[in-house]
Amino acid sequence: MVAPNFTITYRISLYHDEDINAKIENLCREQSVELPRSVLSHHIEATIVARLLSLSRNPDATYNAVIQYPLPNASDEITQLLNVMFGNISLVPGIQVVDADWTTLSETIFKGPRFGISGIRERIGVHDRALSSTALKPVGTSARELAGLAYQFALGGIDLIKDDHGLTNQSYAPFADRLKYTTEAVAKANAESGRNSCYIPHITAPGDELWRRYELAVDHGAQAVMVCPQLCGPEVMQRIAAHDTPLPVMAHPAFSGAYVQDRAHGFSKSFFYGALWRAMGADFTIFPNHSGRFSFTMQECVDIVDTARDPQLPFAPIFPTPGGGMQRETVPYFIDKYGIDTVFLIGGSLYEHPGGIRQAAQEILTILQEAQYEK
Amino acid sequence: MVAPNFTITYRISLYHDEDINAKIENLCREQSVELPRSVLSHHIEATIVARLLSLSRNPDATYNAVIQYPLPNASDEITQLLNVMFGNISLVPGIQVVDADWTTLSETIFKGPRFGISGIRERIGVHDRALSSTALKPVGTSARELAGLAYQFALGGIDLIKDDHGLTNQSYAPFADRLKYTTEAVAKANAESGRNSCYIPHITAPGDELWRRYELAVDHGAQAVMVCPQLCGPEVMQRIAAHDTPLPVMAHPAFSGAYVQDRAHGFSKSFFYGALWRAMGADFTIFPNHSGRFSFTMQECVDIVDTARDPQLPFAPIFPTPGGGMQRETVPYFIDKYGIDTVFLIGGSLYEHPGGIRQAAQEILTILQEAQYEK
Repeated sequence: MVAPNFTITYRISLYHDEDINAKIENLCREQSVELPRSVLSHHIEATIVARLLSLSRNPDATYNAVIQYPLPNASDEITQLLNVMFGNISLVPGIQVVDADWTTLSETIFKGPRFGISGIRERIGVHDRALSSTALKPVGTSARELAGLAYQFALGGIDLIKDDHGLTNQSYAPFADRLKYTTEAVAKANAESGRNSCYIPHITAPGDELWRRYELAVDHGAQAVMVCPQLCGPEVMQRIAAHDTPLPVMAHPAFSGAYVQDRAHGFSKSFFYGALWRAMGADFTIFPNHSGRFSFTMQECVDIVDTARDPQLPFAPIFPTPGGGMQRETVPYFIDKYGIDTVFLIGGSLYEHPGGIRQAAQEILTILQEAQYEK
Repeated sequence: MVAPNFTITYRISLYHDEDINAKIENLCREQSVELPRSVLSHHIEATIVARLLSLSRNPDATYNAVIQYPLPNASDEITQLLNVMFGNISLVPGIQVVDADWTTLSETIFKGPRFGISGIRERIGVHDRALSSTALKPVGTSARELAGLAYQFALGGIDLIKDDHGLTNQSYAPFADRLKYTTEAVAKANAESGRNSCYIPHITAPGDELWRRYELAVDHGAQAVMVCPQLCGPEVMQRIAAHDTPLPVMAHPAFSGAYVQDRAHGFSKSFFYGALWRAMGADFTIFPNHSGRFSFTMQECVDIVDTARDPQLPFAPIFPTPGGGMQRETVPYFIDKYGIDTVFLIGGSLYEHPGGIRQAAQEILTILQEAQYEK
């Protein structure tokens, strides 16, 4: 009987005198047996070694190679699956992961998000417009002051008020204090506004401390949590999403840039932020928006957005969450580009508003509400 | 009173019309407050914002910028320290971490290795020659067969017999069986040889399962453990090194290549594998040797070796462990390059030996013993 398998598609660039067939043969062995074929038994060759399923040449002279792996090689563990996908081969130039066949992986290792777009919309009761998000900051601000900012943002109509990813447990605003004051402040604002703004604390921390913060977030009625998968370990996000008391998970790209920065190496941005993080349980995938402080192209951002919501994947669609220097004025342009199943993460531009953050938030809400009528 | 601080040195490349001062200003804000200066209070500006300490221009037209961060920004957590060091800025091209001032960091966040070179030499009783290591593989081999290989390697004189990083808990050789049979096999070989070969199981796994494997390794008398910090989460290695029942830690570079592959982005190889992993508790740092299956240059490898043992760092020196396609015949050359405080990790080349793996191991031991007399 043939064991179940899965495929990973790599985009391969050749350097110097490299040969495509030799590079693929190297990849297949490196990612499975890590030995020369001369010392392998026929049984190992037949059951363990990765194999090339198909190869196509791209217009830019790179190749797309679809590589098939026996599922048992991944040992039903996400750590080992990532090892098979891009472990040692991460040390070879010109190898980029661009796609996966999720069929068997979604039945075993990856469970996807617990909520997704429809679950989030259900929870906050907003169905017909894009959502807004902002970040509480900067580090150095007291917990009470941050809660005061959250109150203003919520009164103004921001849907998802998250900690900045730089807020963890600094003495200026210890996690427990920040959580307590901010959940209270947002609840108070909601009672006044009749809306349903959410506070999303950032829980990235070493080991058990992360779980302590998660439990605290549950206890205080936080409506979601934010993590940085590359800081706490990618498998940790998956376990958060699988928690017995589930909260929606917002994934932040801090420390992840090296995996996507090189266009010939690592992961394609759409696969990493759109597909992989969705498979690993993110309900929101934050990525650096085009024209902000970072360097993603418009097409790369559109690809992330499309992949995060791709109905072909066997996981619930999730909210693409562009941020990182988004300006108030550009929101209508990006709603047009990305559609209303998007969370717009706007930070500094709200803080800079001459009328204050509450007025800034109100203007964002108006923009989002008006955009819905254009649909 | 001025808070304690630490510095990170970034090598900065400029693209298109970028200006070095603007890029540094962006880095300083991105990695601390993530807000425009116009909305910062004087207090935040004075106490939180990162600042440029010194700037020098390199011959290749890149710049080295020494950036000072207030220590409280890192919240005494390794996850947040990595966030401050290379969180959002990982999403900006042309930023590479090349150095750190470990003075305050070694008093707070980083504890370094528990054993280091001298502790390891003490444990195995070999003081005057380089050490050898090999990997049990391939995936698909049964636990008893792997133990049989370990027995032969140990009889032949390999010092450190580790699992291949692709062996986790596959059904072919479940972790507990592999551990039991292999520790027994190596103990038997040691009783016969009078030497002190070590078995190093690979414990990378999601969450609690990793700790279950660590405890099992302790219970069965394994002499060290191997982990892949980028697969299980970098902070996990640090906690392993801090365990109440400490075992030496071997760090494997699977899934880490994206952080070091781009010469203008991420981390310099020597900082990542030599300094950072040492600070995080590795006793052995495995890296892809020059002229093997990967692409590191001779100079990059020498730099890793030197950094792993740099007496200036406030952590015990650790064993550089070059591997990844090292040939038996080249060991004398690399002993000459790296010195005897090195572990030579030789896999496939032993499996390919026409006389079998025990004879191959004996030849390696002879090479290492002869090299000592040349010192």
